[in-house]
Amino acid sequence: MANRKLRYGMVGGGQNAFIGAVHRLAANLDGQIELVAGAFSSDAKNSVTTGEQLFLNPARVYASYAEMAEREAALPPEERIDFVSIVTPNFLHAPVATAFLKKGFHVVCDKPMTLTLKEAKALREVVRKSGKVFALTHNYTGYPMVKEARELVRTGKLGKILKVVAEYPQGWLLDKIESEGQKQASWRLDPKKAGSSSCVGDIGTHAENLGRYITGLQIEELCAEFTSFIPGRKLEDDANMLIRYQGGAKGVLHCSQISCGEENNLNIRVYGTLGALAWHQEHPNELKFIPKGEPARIIRRGNGYVSDVAKKFTRLPFGHPEAFIEAFANIYLEAVAAIRANIAGKKETFDHPTVDDGVEGVAFIETCVKSAASGKWTKFPKL
Amino acid sequence: MANRKLRYGMVGGGQNAFIGAVHRLAANLDGQIELVAGAFSSDAKNSVTTGEQLFLNPARVYASYAEMAEREAALPPEERIDFVSIVTPNFLHAPVATAFLKKGFHVVCDKPMTLTLKEAKALREVVRKSGKVFALTHNYTGYPMVKEARELVRTGKLGKILKVVAEYPQGWLLDKIESEGQKQASWRLDPKKAGSSSCVGDIGTHAENLGRYITGLQIEELCAEFTSFIPGRKLEDDANMLIRYQGGAKGVLHCSQISCGEENNLNIRVYGTLGALAWHQEHPNELKFIPKGEPARIIRRGNGYVSDVAKKFTRLPFGHPEAFIEAFANIYLEAVAAIRANIAGKKETFDHPTVDDGVEGVAFIETCVKSAASGKWTKFPKL
Amino acid sequence: MANRKLRYGMVGGGQNAFIGAVHRLAANLDGQIELVAGAFSSDAKNSVTTGEQLFLNPARVYASYAEMAEREAALPPEERIDFVSIVTPNFLHAPVATAFLKKGFHVVCDKPMTLTLKEAKALREVVRKSGKVFALTHNYTGYPMVKEARELVRTGKLGKILKVVAEYPQGWLLDKIESEGQKQASWRLDPKKAGSSSCVGDIGTHAENLGRYITGLQIEELCAEFTSFIPGRKLEDDANMLIRYQGGAKGVLHCSQISCGEENNLNIRVYGTLGALAWHQEHPNELKFIPKGEPARIIRRGNGYVSDVAKKFTRLPFGHPEAFIEAFANIYLEAVAAIRANIAGKKETFDHPTVDDGVEGVAFIETCVKSAASGKWTKFPKL
Amino acid sequence: MANRKLRYGMVGGGQNAFIGAVHRLAANLDGQIELVAGAFSSDAKNSVTTGEQLFLNPARVYASYAEMAEREAALPPEERIDFVSIVTPNFLHAPVATAFLKKGFHVVCDKPMTLTLKEAKALREVVRKSGKVFALTHNYTGYPMVKEARELVRTGKLGKILKVVAEYPQGWLLDKIESEGQKQASWRLDPKKAGSSSCVGDIGTHAENLGRYITGLQIEELCAEFTSFIPGRKLEDDANMLIRYQGGAKGVLHCSQISCGEENNLNIRVYGTLGALAWHQEHPNELKFIPKGEPARIIRRGNGYVSDVAKKFTRLPFGHPEAFIEAFANIYLEAVAAIRANIAGKKETFDHPTVDDGVEGVAFIETCVKSAASGKWTKFPKL
Repeated sequence: MANRKLRYGMVGGGQNAFIGAVHRLAANLDGQIELVAGAFSSDAKNSVTTGEQLFLNPARVYASYAEMAEREAALPPEERIDFVSIVTPNFLHAPVATAFLKKGFHVVCDKPMTLTLKEAKALREVVRKSGKVFALTHNYTGYPMVKEARELVRTGKLGKILKVVAEYPQGWLLDKIESEGQKQASWRLDPKKAGSSSCVGDIGTHAENLGRYITGLQIEELCAEFTSFIPGRKLEDDANMLIRYQGGAKGVLHCSQISCGEENNLNIRVYGTLGALAWHQEHPNELKFIPKGEPARIIRRGNGYVSDVAKKFTRLPFGHPEAFIEAFANIYLEAVAAIRANIAGKKETFDHPTVDDGVEGVAFIETCVKSAASGKWTKFPKL
Repeated sequence: MANRKLRYGMVGGGQNAFIGAVHRLAANLDGQIELVAGAFSSDAKNSVTTGEQLFLNPARVYASYAEMAEREAALPPEERIDFVSIVTPNFLHAPVATAFLKKGFHVVCDKPMTLTLKEAKALREVVRKSGKVFALTHNYTGYPMVKEARELVRTGKLGKILKVVAEYPQGWLLDKIESEGQKQASWRLDPKKAGSSSCVGDIGTHAENLGRYITGLQIEELCAEFTSFIPGRKLEDDANMLIRYQGGAKGVLHCSQISCGEENNLNIRVYGTLGALAWHQEHPNELKFIPKGEPARIIRRGNGYVSDVAKKFTRLPFGHPEAFIEAFANIYLEAVAAIRANIAGKKETFDHPTVDDGVEGVAFIETCVKSAASGKWTKFPKL
Repeated sequence: MANRKLRYGMVGGGQNAFIGAVHRLAANLDGQIELVAGAFSSDAKNSVTTGEQLFLNPARVYASYAEMAEREAALPPEERIDFVSIVTPNFLHAPVATAFLKKGFHVVCDKPMTLTLKEAKALREVVRKSGKVFALTHNYTGYPMVKEARELVRTGKLGKILKVVAEYPQGWLLDKIESEGQKQASWRLDPKKAGSSSCVGDIGTHAENLGRYITGLQIEELCAEFTSFIPGRKLEDDANMLIRYQGGAKGVLHCSQISCGEENNLNIRVYGTLGALAWHQEHPNELKFIPKGEPARIIRRGNGYVSDVAKKFTRLPFGHPEAFIEAFANIYLEAVAAIRANIAGKKETFDHPTVDDGVEGVAFIETCVKSAASGKWTKFPKL
Repeated sequence: MANRKLRYGMVGGGQNAFIGAVHRLAANLDGQIELVAGAFSSDAKNSVTTGEQLFLNPARVYASYAEMAEREAALPPEERIDFVSIVTPNFLHAPVATAFLKKGFHVVCDKPMTLTLKEAKALREVVRKSGKVFALTHNYTGYPMVKEARELVRTGKLGKILKVVAEYPQGWLLDKIESEGQKQASWRLDPKKAGSSSCVGDIGTHAENLGRYITGLQIEELCAEFTSFIPGRKLEDDANMLIRYQGGAKGVLHCSQISCGEENNLNIRVYGTLGALAWHQEHPNELKFIPKGEPARIIRRGNGYVSDVAKKFTRLPFGHPEAFIEAFANIYLEAVAAIRANIAGKKETFDHPTVDDGVEGVAFIETCVKSAASGKWTKFPKL
């Protein structure tokens, strides 16, 4: 392909949305991608205003995703978008992704991938048949120190893994802000838009994905406890899980949306027979590694001693902190690389979450919901 | 009583023991207590040597606790010990305590209090009948910032408590050191000496006690997962629990003896409707308090703004760190105050763990063992 | 002006450069600016290659800054750049800025502004006469928590300021990498390209600017100690200063390029009669504020309780960390706002470092150099 | 000598005193020493009450130090004190120490050793002639991780030392509490009782001693800036120093008593050609060590990997924090060992600060005072 920026369109992400703006910042960062189209909101006026603020050609700001898929596909190849970013509430992920894949577009999609496991498997089929790139924004795996953590595990520095403690406490839903029209809260607590889970679906699934990315461990069964602390909520705002992994490791995974004072405190500790590691999303440039019987090492992004993969996903020298946007942008960079390779007809794999991660994530949510409802240890399904 | 130091004797705590030496440091610290007698080991030579190193009168270094109880009771009141400190492996706590209580001595006893709940309740009866002071060394509640945490809860600063996360990871049993004659490891992993649990009995019970001390919450039921990671162990070296408290709060409590790189990382976070707190034993002079919607406060021991109870248990000005021994000594100070009051015939209560805490702790252990064996949520017994 | 992105060109920032890439990331982030031209290197091939990698029209990749100023000025207004970003070694800042200002372009320029105070004052005149926007990238003042710190001081939360401790230790020049062709090191240690100072010029001036931005204090006199630890260096690689501020406050400012293990550890503590604050660039989302006699507050970016100015320069919710690029982009955003206002003929002031800050910075460097040479307390000049 | 505790008496340390109580806690801790006599205050009633609270024989509570020296010397050897602890304000250190040394007693003395360098040298003579043990309580060198730091330097892990940054900020004198009768503040700010310096004398000298203990570097010259921020003070409450060490290393040492929110924040960073270290007194169980080009190591007290000397001065296992009292007690333990060796006629050296450290400390104070008065770099005197 010619030496050019990739073009993308966005579905969702109008005014008052949160994650759409994040996707745009991440997509902007490296100067590899340009936004040229959008269906930003089911509210047409919101969509138009958003398009204006983003300096878009009004002709490419659409009233619906269906129209967008249709009309973009009708544009000449040198104009139309290369891929779509889907940043809507959960219930739209599957239909929007399907519509664009079927029109031949690559897809970047937010998580959780779908409302149900059945829907997830169906989307997996669509992706496979399409031959297109599908990248899921489990963005926390984009952090260089998370990749370094995976390298430590992969290269045996931790030995056999015995225990994983993953946490994702937040506190932003301690008040019933969904009753006050807070848009982010409203759809996340509405089963029709969010699915069968709020807390696990929104954030627990990130913790699960992070643990799997770093350790490679597969869950065998789990025991979940869900609570809706704030009266009137149909979905849980707090969830605690005990986990048994295949091969004998054990896990604790807890997440919360009502933990006062917690911001976005995703963190993970992995304990093995030869070493341990710890990483905190709110201080992402550091990774703690403790070899057995030795002082802890504070591994810091940007140093010469880190692995090649951690170096590859780093833009700034040590001590010049990188953060959330850069990690998110790393997912985009890999998606872009995958799309460029796909266009060029090359078969390569890239380091971004895929439709298979999406299926795993939805299976995790469903298993937690099932266990919490029964109060029993519950097997993770075959996928 | 006359203005004098209290006299005590020690059962256990010979050479190579750990906790006996800690008790002596704690008892020494404030110059309120003097060690005058001991039955330090079932090995008579060890006991004699220990007595010499402690500058004791050889006549008061005994071959057995039974002999010590007998002979100390026979001494004139102005010579004999006021109380005994029991620092043996678990299985001896009950018989030793019973022997000394029956001879009219006050008791300071290490935890867990007994091997079984039945035994614990029996000891509770002995204590009640004796009218003597019984202080259990759940030492972590001796920290001033733990007392400050309790004050925050008591005075409503956290509102209604929703969630408690208590952790106690250690890594010292990652290698099978009990096979290499490491004394501390050997008895803790021997069901005959330690009881039905290693990890929960030794440290999980501290986390439970800490949570109860700070929050006042009672456990309603729990779901436990025990693992013996190191082959050949009869007792668990790792345990994870989900907890339902009376009144609707939820808890996660996990503890481990095989978590590589962890030292003695007891910590607790409590989340309420109005605020949250966090405390880490390895940095005990600080308490984090986050009022809802406000910046976190770092409350530090020794400042004018802390509560009277935190001030009472503080020796040094701010910035001059206190630590483990001082907290342990606070338990001793309260036991001493209780004994002085008891001798003076005064009815007062003091801020040290009691035989009731001991019963609760053993009930917690038994409930965890039962739940882990069945894989089911299990009710906490009536006590 | 029409609703459009601003267009800019870059001087410097070719392959192997560091700060040019940072400027581009920062300029990209918010989708407000597009790069359309460049004279990236005195090496024409490097410049061309850089232009290709940045997807530029080859016709607008120039062989020299002079040609670029000339030819861009000749383009129609709807095509030509709005401003130039100058990211060259220090000695080129003044001539390049002057060339573009004289052609009617706005300027974003890296620091230190010029090699000498005389040159700085001359540039100040050029800027004043031009009526154009001149923004200096003292990027650390772009951090929201630095702005919050300034608000604390401005609103009297610290009372009268007594003492300021500012540090900027780095360790990247501990080895003599300038002898191994490391480009960043080579020019920074070359008096012809860097000026009369390496360490103070490159980083000490950031610490000075940060302190002045937060406190508003002006230096009255200072006593400096320079060292060239690594043999053969003509400029200092370590510098320590005692400072007397106007009004009686005192300061310590030390910076280093040979402090092993230090990365980019700019930090500042300000102590007043009513409170104190502390901020560390490597953990930029937090600001510590200690009101007298009260617990420290940990103020965190993104919370509802922060000042409006800190909110204005924030993109992500709390707990989703922002970092170096976002702070840098905040300087660009303000420069863009200033340029848009200038184009619209509005007289407004914006929160970006100006040519006056550049003059102050160069005066600081010269005063340090003078004091270090004499070993005496030296007056800060009138500007 | 017989297997017995050492007996000591105390001069100073009555009610409302601070450091006397600290000395007693430290002396109590290890059960090696017993307090049997005292002249606790120039106020006889205070002295008597203090003696009662400490369970002393009233016959050995004296009205003056002179009487105490006289009468203790007259007691039979098996009763009289082995050594005296001097915990008075500074001006009494020399006369009291001299009195007891001349009566044949060993001495433990608080710092700074004397009011003047002349007096310090005179005391050195008295000590040398007496043949007795003289231990100065520069207590911060008693911390195991400080000893570990010294080992890192001694064994070459840091290479050649280039730079030392030592800080000792406090904030307790931000208000003029000496006017409100606060005893600790009053004498420290009174030149007759404290000497020619408040801030450097009380705490700067600790920072200097700590730096010298760890690095072995001798000061060649220094440039000091003293400030009395609070009106009416005759001595400085804030001091900042630039230092040139023999051999070319450079230093920054700043200390303060008016830094709002600072508690007792003594800390030190040492940068060498091969590595760096950092230690903070408020988190004393950790030592950060950064080998060049490698991740920082967090060395923690109590681990198997620490040096023998750090192990020797450790009582508790890792993760069971030790703190200020234990470090202080380590000075006492070494003094006790030295006294036992002295009594036994053995020539050995022990790891406690000596009269030579006292002379160095007073020389440091005098040099700072001189430099601050002149505003010039000032040579460190020959001692």
